[in-house]
Amino acid sequence: MDRRNILTLIGASSLMAACQETSSDAASGDQNPEINWRLITSWPKNFPGIGQAPEDVARMVSEMTNGKFKIKVYGAGEMAPALGVFDNVSSGAAHMGHSAAYYWKGKLAAAPFFTGVPFGMNAREMHAWIQEGGGQALWEELYAPYGVLPLAGGNTGVQMGGWFNKPIESLEDLQGLKMRIPGIAGEIWNKAGGTSVMLPGGEIFQALEKGTIDATEWLGPANDLAFGLPQIAKYYYMPGWHEPGSMLEFSINKKAFEALPSHYQFILKIACQSVADKMLNFYTAANAKALETIKSNPNVEIRQFPSVVLDKLYQMTQEVLSEMAASSDDVKKVYDSYTSFQKQAQAYNRVSEEAYYRVRTAIESIETDI
Amino acid sequence: MDRRNILTLIGASSLMAACQETSSDAASGDQNPEINWRLITSWPKNFPGIGQAPEDVARMVSEMTNGKFKIKVYGAGEMAPALGVFDNVSSGAAHMGHSAAYYWKGKLAAAPFFTGVPFGMNAREMHAWIQEGGGQALWEELYAPYGVLPLAGGNTGVQMGGWFNKPIESLEDLQGLKMRIPGIAGEIWNKAGGTSVMLPGGEIFQALEKGTIDATEWLGPANDLAFGLPQIAKYYYMPGWHEPGSMLEFSINKKAFEALPSHYQFILKIACQSVADKMLNFYTAANAKALETIKSNPNVEIRQFPSVVLDKLYQMTQEVLSEMAASSDDVKKVYDSYTSFQKQAQAYNRVSEEAYYRVRTAIESIETDI
Repeated sequence: MDRRNILTLIGASSLMAACQETSSDAASGDQNPEINWRLITSWPKNFPGIGQAPEDVARMVSEMTNGKFKIKVYGAGEMAPALGVFDNVSSGAAHMGHSAAYYWKGKLAAAPFFTGVPFGMNAREMHAWIQEGGGQALWEELYAPYGVLPLAGGNTGVQMGGWFNKPIESLEDLQGLKMRIPGIAGEIWNKAGGTSVMLPGGEIFQALEKGTIDATEWLGPANDLAFGLPQIAKYYYMPGWHEPGSMLEFSINKKAFEALPSHYQFILKIACQSVADKMLNFYTAANAKALETIKSNPNVEIRQFPSVVLDKLYQMTQEVLSEMAASSDDVKKVYDSYTSFQKQAQAYNRVSEEAYYRVRTAIESIETDI
Repeated sequence: MDRRNILTLIGASSLMAACQETSSDAASGDQNPEINWRLITSWPKNFPGIGQAPEDVARMVSEMTNGKFKIKVYGAGEMAPALGVFDNVSSGAAHMGHSAAYYWKGKLAAAPFFTGVPFGMNAREMHAWIQEGGGQALWEELYAPYGVLPLAGGNTGVQMGGWFNKPIESLEDLQGLKMRIPGIAGEIWNKAGGTSVMLPGGEIFQALEKGTIDATEWLGPANDLAFGLPQIAKYYYMPGWHEPGSMLEFSINKKAFEALPSHYQFILKIACQSVADKMLNFYTAANAKALETIKSNPNVEIRQFPSVVLDKLYQMTQEVLSEMAASSDDVKKVYDSYTSFQKQAQAYNRVSEEAYYRVRTAIESIETDI
């Protein structure tokens, strides 16, 4: 995902004024006061999939309050920089944000676990951990000192492993390979011998076309196709070991939230939860359709990473996660909760959803080019 | 699931009166009128998992309307019989129901596709078809002549294949085997040589203990454990080929819905959608925990059905579904939409979620007793 697109941050004072106004409205005794919120995001305005979630929540909240509670959505750079979401929600400059927790790793070392980690939980396991496994409480505890309330904000599902301009058949093929791959996954890539490169989404196509990079990950078939990646790279690798179910986040300024009438608070929270199902539905359908188009391109080959490469990446992942857990008691607590829930949920999926996928595919013996 | 528990149907007149009252309230000019609805279900009151969805929706709708829109939930038999939900919502005797579409197969031959069919779509594929693949429009069209609006009402995820008191190693082992397995799956079971038996949930334990039946399916580890099934059967089979992602349904009386202020309509619909994520989260966590308990029982063995048995069940499934599709143009239309969406979504999952499960399990080489 695009991590830069950093424009000027607008002055916080006018937004703070809006926030104060909200509070006094709510206290005035009108049970259904008019409220106006500003929601900042890390995505270009109306970006397909992930960028639709804040638009959906704004629309739903307005519909459910008869137009009384309005949320205006700002794309990255319109009011705050793409990576300024957390800070601006924390300060109260914006009432609410939509982004991904792993962007706040520099400030909060445990944050990546609330988006997802390499070889970690998929969408279904992740959401179950947040709701039923203690994840939500740990997430709230992590953000509490900043006056921010986090909520799950949709999920991309398993991403694709990325586009490569040469086949990956051994560990040697990884050595020095320049791949656009951000965050923890980038660190792991480097430990395995590759060279991770950080580039905003908008610069990927040109960099890969010119050979400045040898490979790139982006999101999945729908977003990858929209970026034109099948035109410039031959090998489309799976699975997305590095992002097995990236959960987005809504962040809400706590003071602004507490100033809302309680039924508005419920409306906001329930609108956010309804997005979880909605975004996965969108990605399942849009990615399935886009994959058909990608497969019909004779210049593209879909391949699975060889097991020797996946083994190495897995070992390096365990090293990086262990180092993170050892870095502080706060991270250790989240790491322990995450990994123990994953172990239990994974054992269940092995006899249910995973077993069903395996059996269905074996029985149907569908021809496939992979 | 329990399909009987049939008690007397209460007179519709008092409920119709409540419905009228609702309508006149809404028309009175008060933007936030007091509304009282009755919701009937096919489940015992507060049944874990599936029975929680209507309680959740009732609570959320009340919270979001400041207590103005109240929905009272009735368990099976309290106001209408377990399988009387559709008819009583259609007549207006109840404003709303929570059940599963495949129970209305006798009236509407295409209905089972809106719950799920053997070897069909899993939860994620199913919800994507409903939201993005034209499923919702077909479902509404099917129910329109009855004045009923259907909405997705949560999903159990992949169920388990069932409990058997002897191992299934060949097709011969299936012959005459008496299994409690309802609906289309029961027909398929019979075609493969078995004998399907219909029993309400509450009678399963005794029937299996006494040897009146040789096997039973129920739901998944959490509900199966609560029923005591590990105490009386040795073999726990996977995967649940017969129910790969059973979607529940909310049914709403259209006239009652149209009489609501539009923001109440949105509140109701969005509360229903938020349940989709919530129920899967519950089942993932509860089933994972229950499976650990089941595995720690030395008398239970978890096994996968042999491929010769699954192949046969798959062939019989195709026969039954083809016969259904040939029975009328209405069924054919739904069948075509369902199967073509499944084909596309399945091809995508094969390179994303399914590939990830496969790779993660292979790498971790976790010891397992299956």
